Amino acid sequence: MSLDALHDLTLTGPNLLVETAPEVLAAYATDQGPVLAYIEPLAVVWPTSVADVQLVLRWASATGTAVVPRGAGTGVSGGAHATGGCIILCLDRMNRILEINAQDEVAVVEPGMINADLNAAAAAHGLMYAPDPASYLTSTIGGNVATNAGGLRCAKYGVTRDSVLALDVVLADGTLISTGRRTFKGVAGYDLTSLFTGSEGTLGIIVGITVRLRYLPVEIRTIAAFFPDFPTAAAGVLAVGAARVQPAIMELLDGATLTALDEAHGSDLRARGDALLLIQTDGFGAGAEADVVRSVLSELGGTVSTEGAAEAERLVELRRHSRGDAVPDQLRVGEDVAVPRSALVRYVAELERMARQYRVNLKVVAHAGDGNLHPTFWVQAADNGGRERLDAALDESIAVALTMGGTITGEHGVGQFKLHWLPQEQRAEVLELQRRVKAVFDPAGILNPGKAIPGDPH
Amino acid sequence: MSLDALHDLTLTGPNLLVETAPEVLAAYATDQGPVLAYIEPLAVVWPTSVADVQLVLRWASATGTAVVPRGAGTGVSGGAHATGGCIILCLDRMNRILEINAQDEVAVVEPGMINADLNAAAAAHGLMYAPDPASYLTSTIGGNVATNAGGLRCAKYGVTRDSVLALDVVLADGTLISTGRRTFKGVAGYDLTSLFTGSEGTLGIIVGITVRLRYLPVEIRTIAAFFPDFPTAAAGVLAVGAARVQPAIMELLDGATLTALDEAHGSDLRARGDALLLIQTDGFGAGAEADVVRSVLSELGGTVSTEGAAEAERLVELRRHSRGDAVPDQLRVGEDVAVPRSALVRYVAELERMARQYRVNLKVVAHAGDGNLHPTFWVQAADNGGRERLDAALDESIAVALTMGGTITGEHGVGQFKLHWLPQEQRAEVLELQRRVKAVFDPAGILNPGKAIPGDPH
Repeated sequence: MSLDALHDLTLTGPNLLVETAPEVLAAYATDQGPVLAYIEPLAVVWPTSVADVQLVLRWASATGTAVVPRGAGTGVSGGAHATGGCIILCLDRMNRILEINAQDEVAVVEPGMINADLNAAAAAHGLMYAPDPASYLTSTIGGNVATNAGGLRCAKYGVTRDSVLALDVVLADGTLISTGRRTFKGVAGYDLTSLFTGSEGTLGIIVGITVRLRYLPVEIRTIAAFFPDFPTAAAGVLAVGAARVQPAIMELLDGATLTALDEAHGSDLRARGDALLLIQTDGFGAGAEADVVRSVLSELGGTVSTEGAAEAERLVELRRHSRGDAVPDQLRVGEDVAVPRSALVRYVAELERMARQYRVNLKVVAHAGDGNLHPTFWVQAADNGGRERLDAALDESIAVALTMGGTITGEHGVGQFKLHWLPQEQRAEVLELQRRVKAVFDPAGILNPGKAIPGDPH
Repeated sequence: MSLDALHDLTLTGPNLLVETAPEVLAAYATDQGPVLAYIEPLAVVWPTSVADVQLVLRWASATGTAVVPRGAGTGVSGGAHATGGCIILCLDRMNRILEINAQDEVAVVEPGMINADLNAAAAAHGLMYAPDPASYLTSTIGGNVATNAGGLRCAKYGVTRDSVLALDVVLADGTLISTGRRTFKGVAGYDLTSLFTGSEGTLGIIVGITVRLRYLPVEIRTIAAFFPDFPTAAAGVLAVGAARVQPAIMELLDGATLTALDEAHGSDLRARGDALLLIQTDGFGAGAEADVVRSVLSELGGTVSTEGAAEAERLVELRRHSRGDAVPDQLRVGEDVAVPRSALVRYVAELERMARQYRVNLKVVAHAGDGNLHPTFWVQAADNGGRERLDAALDESIAVALTMGGTITGEHGVGQFKLHWLPQEQRAEVLELQRRVKAVFDPAGILNPGKAIPGDPH
């Protein structure tokens, strides 16, 4: 009934595509996050304009239909999983660059723009869009904003929020609003732009994004330092900081990650050490900074090589792919905690203890510059009791990160999967405030329900 | 009656200081912003602890008393002006550094901490707190956060918001909450930290602040380039950008500002040119960047000198003081618009046109790297009709900035003085959303009423 009405919407919005074919519903039922309860949407709807989005939201408000917005579906927290009776609002056909202004150093894009495509366009002007989630080749700017995505270059260039100047947002009732401004600075009114950034589609549908662009670095240097053990490599992170070098990229890979990369890509990383600290410096000071980094890490006992451009690019790309593909006969969950930098070594020691205690496999990579760790735990699917031990290890890894002053999610978002951990990090008063903020924007609760913040406890 | 009750509070909070002496009320009635209607507070209250603040807020909620928080009172938008029947909650005695952790690169401070004092303490660890409003010697971190203060180093290091990791906030009803996290990255829940930052005390009282520290640059180079006219100097801003150099500081001073500085400080700047572009590069690339800047600006016709360290520091300090002291026989209003960088030249040409048209005096300085301009308009106090012409020029300067894609306030805040301009920048729906957000945090409207966002229009 209401679906017929949805199809009827295409009479008003002739470029609105509404699909209800079973294979489409299945393909868009989930993102790349763990699936707690598989649910298919009523329909998948592709708008091609802001007016289309307004049309859909007005219909959804009138019919009380839940709307789950989706970019490329590369999220790993289930933020774009379908929920009961929802439609998926897929924004990947709204993918135009509306403007790049090299003098103002801003770009205006539609939400379905692919991160890498924006960067390619910006590069023609000597500029870049700095936030670079590992999914940058396929993920959308809209999804990046919705999750406040991080990436490798965050320690120097900031996260997505730090590059977003202004947003156009369609509210639950179809109202189009604009937040922020085109200028780099501005303090008129409350910072609604930051409020929408990272709100995972629960406050409004982002339909236009103005971002600040940065200068493409004139020079990049990559240093690979292999260490005999993880603690020494992690000490390197602090040593580089103590030398006052702010790398663009500072990635820490443990031995198990090196082994996994070797197996997947035929590299020989594991033979070179038990932990890899991969550092890029960039800009006019790249060479001088690289000299300091090499010196500092050599003193610590690292085997330091300056990689050539091609090899360096290959190592960084290997790192971007280090999450690995799903393996059919394994249960595998990647985590995303962040801890204060000084806690990196202690935290990884705790992870290793948990892996032994719960008999699960573990590999760890970290955006070490900002203390953001991606441990992956896994067991064989056939392992009896494996899932329970995996869950126990996950729960403990979260609890321990919090005791060290960390957070349950550095950059992937709470989505659906991490919702049950959020009350461990944030007290009831803060959760209640967020529920009331959501109610301001989405009083009927149709926008991505059951994501990002806990629903009403009453 | 209610004031007696307030005095009685000191029995519960023995370190709470409550002053009602006339000279105290007068001294704390206003900040440095223009005074539209002079009002004195009922009392000035100094808490020395979080518990004190909670005590006062519970009392204020119970009695419906308006609370105007205040740091050092250096704001220039009237955000800390007393309003009818209010108390001033002065946080300058809560001024301790609670922690500096050099490995984590964070500091935790009370709101009354002076910006420069935090920097002095951080420097001992080779670190700095980057946001540097011109008032940094006297303004407080709490006030900086409340206004999302900018400064000279923003183009490279970001504004206050970009350095704030976590906040402790006392809500209107006395509830203490914590937002954010100690880690550089984190996306758990909505970004309440950014929502409080820049909210000018209208959503809660900030009682604890965790900030990210940055590395003290290993090297700083200062370049002073004098130009025969303002448009050429402004073209230099874009030329430096096109050369992919991100200066730490990029300040543009017009001829009238140079004259004013010479008169106040006995310098000879005006003799060297009609506009000054003052640039600092910093970090490992400072020297290489300075070379590029010199070359680019020389080609444009600038008279470029690399200043020695002492002279450079003097020029930057002169710039910080370029707002100038109040002059008794003048009506003088400093503005704070921001425009896209490419509009700098056109905007200043418009300002000069307005100054002629309305027969007002004008000088302009700009944080040119981020398009943030501080024009100062003034007339002689004895000038018949001067105030009306001044107001007309101000109104038009705001309107024109908005037509160029700018904002009414880049870094000073809306406060009380700019409130009437806000509806020109933000549409009714956005203003209404903000009113409803405020109602979530402060349902009775006791927190700094009549500031930052317009009250209920009904």
